[in-house]
Amino acid sequence: MEKLDMLYRGKAKELYSTDDPDVLWVKYMDQATAGDGAKKAQIQGKGILNNRITTVLFRLLEAEGVKTHFIRRISDTEQLNEKISMFPLEIIMRNTAAGSFAKRYGIEEGTALKRPILEFCYKSDELHDPFINIDGIVALGLATEEQMAEVSRQARDINDKLTSIFDRIGVKLVDFKIEEGVNPQGQIVLADEITPDTCRLWDANAKTGTVGHLDKDLFRRDLGDIIPAYEEIYDRLAALADREGIAVE
Amino acid sequence: MEKLDMLYRGKAKELYSTDDPDVLWVKYMDQATAGDGAKKAQIQGKGILNNRITTVLFRLLEAEGVKTHFIRRISDTEQLNEKISMFPLEIIMRNTAAGSFAKRYGIEEGTALKRPILEFCYKSDELHDPFINIDGIVALGLATEEQMAEVSRQARDINDKLTSIFDRIGVKLVDFKIEEGVNPQGQIVLADEITPDTCRLWDANAKTGTVGHLDKDLFRRDLGDIIPAYEEIYDRLAALADREGIAVE
Ligand SMILES: Nc1ncnc2c1ncn2[C@@H]1O[C@H](COP(=O)(O)OP(=O)(O)OP(=O)(O)O)[C@@H](O)[C@H]1O
Ligand SMILES: Nc1ncnc2c1ncn2[C@@H]1O[C@H](COP(=O)(O)OP(=O)(O)OP(=O)(O)O)[C@@H](O)[C@H]1O
Ligand SMILES: [Mg+2]
Ligand SMILES: [Mg+2]
Repeated sequence: MEKLDMLYRGKAKELYSTDDPDVLWVKYMDQATAGDGAKKAQIQGKGILNNRITTVLFRLLEAEGVKTHFIRRISDTEQLNEKISMFPLEIIMRNTAAGSFAKRYGIEEGTALKRPILEFCYKSDELHDPFINIDGIVALGLATEEQMAEVSRQARDINDKLTSIFDRIGVKLVDFKIEEGVNPQGQIVLADEITPDTCRLWDANAKTGTVGHLDKDLFRRDLGDIIPAYEEIYDRLAALADREGIAVE
Repeated sequence: MEKLDMLYRGKAKELYSTDDPDVLWVKYMDQATAGDGAKKAQIQGKGILNNRITTVLFRLLEAEGVKTHFIRRISDTEQLNEKISMFPLEIIMRNTAAGSFAKRYGIEEGTALKRPILEFCYKSDELHDPFINIDGIVALGLATEEQMAEVSRQARDINDKLTSIFDRIGVKLVDFKIEEGVNPQGQIVLADEITPDTCRLWDANAKTGTVGHLDKDLFRRDLGDIIPAYEEIYDRLAALADREGIAVE
């Protein structure tokens, strides 16, 4: 596999074409951003950790029957992914009120939600990723009604499976964002990344009175260094995969 | 029927109790507000017109099988309504991109939508009526899943019927907001008001190049006096009801 032109430079990853038109070469960067790009930093070691964390999570999910874009990890910071025709959507699942949700509805962060909440944002830098519902998605031509039924089904299924995975490593999955799209075979699959950049992860054994953030909120809210937290997540996930006999490359 | 204590003073109406616990005495005021209450004015004659317009619209909808809170108009500015246990929701239907929707998604006002869009906002002054979806509504305990299925069905049905009513009087129904709740018999019904305060209404025969606003956007955007526009809407609706043999008190 040969790395060719850079196709896109996002906030956390660089995408390159390869000699196979269906395969993308993805490089995880050390860059961290927050607050719609207002806050930005280079955090040494984040790229390596996120490349590893998303690898083990995608392998664990695949072992439970979830279809993903993941092909294989090829270096510390790089992986190969199927090239996906992405829906321009942030697909958000919430189990516990936190962040923008808690603020938007005036609910205390940490309040358990009666049931998982699925939300969508329209990915658009100029529009600042506005909230959108399925009617809006279909009316704007971002996806069809049938595609959104499948995306919704997958998002809830992935939430169930990820909640259980994190549960097994003593971490509470508060909320997360995924992205999906259509793979070269025409199937709707999970793409992009699942990392502490895109999840809220709270240590189930945190000292009483503390939340035990193991995610990007440490950076967003200036609560401390993210690297030890991301390392903790990676170590626990790698140990889980090992226990369960799942290869993580 | 006796008018007793004032229960609530909203931005456009005052609600009074009566000697029947299931009946509300509602007074339409001349007050107009816009922009989350930032803009406010007294517009003489608006209360009379909105009381009449909502009366004829509720009568026309009832004639087509829609269940409403409406009992009868009792004076120029007053009407009796069933007392409803309201869902704290703004239920918004859109047929054409306009207002906050056009802005939020970067679409030119006036663009026809591929299909009607149903949106909800959580009615909360402190939170500034945030966008919410059905998952959020259920998780916050604002209504049940089953209630929201019925509310959604009614909203789409009312949109179809209102679009046709306005079509018959040469007016394009761009979008509107309704409120619903549970009546004393336990049924989900249409409540609150349907007026040019709560709809976007564009004259189908407006001069080319103009929109022909016949609604509160005249006030919101300082485009002119609302009274002649509201009178025009009332006159056309009254003539329609007359042609169709529907009593409008
Ligand atoms: N398998 C894939 N095929 C095609 N595109 C993908 C795939 N996986 C992820 N992407 C896209 O890669 C892009 C770069 O990722 P990155 O996380 O750096 O961007 P971002 O921070 O989300 O910001 P933005 O999406 O606005 O560029 C994202 O737009 C994402 O949608
Ligand atoms: N049949 C009904 N039974 C009980 N409440 C009703 C009924 N119809 C309307 N309402 C309520 O009457 C209130 C007053 O109406 P008004 O339009 O003045 O308020 P508003 O401008 O929407 O602002 P707010 O709802 O924040 O007071 C609204 O809160 C509405 O939900
Ligand atoms: Mg990203
Ligand atoms: Mg009102």
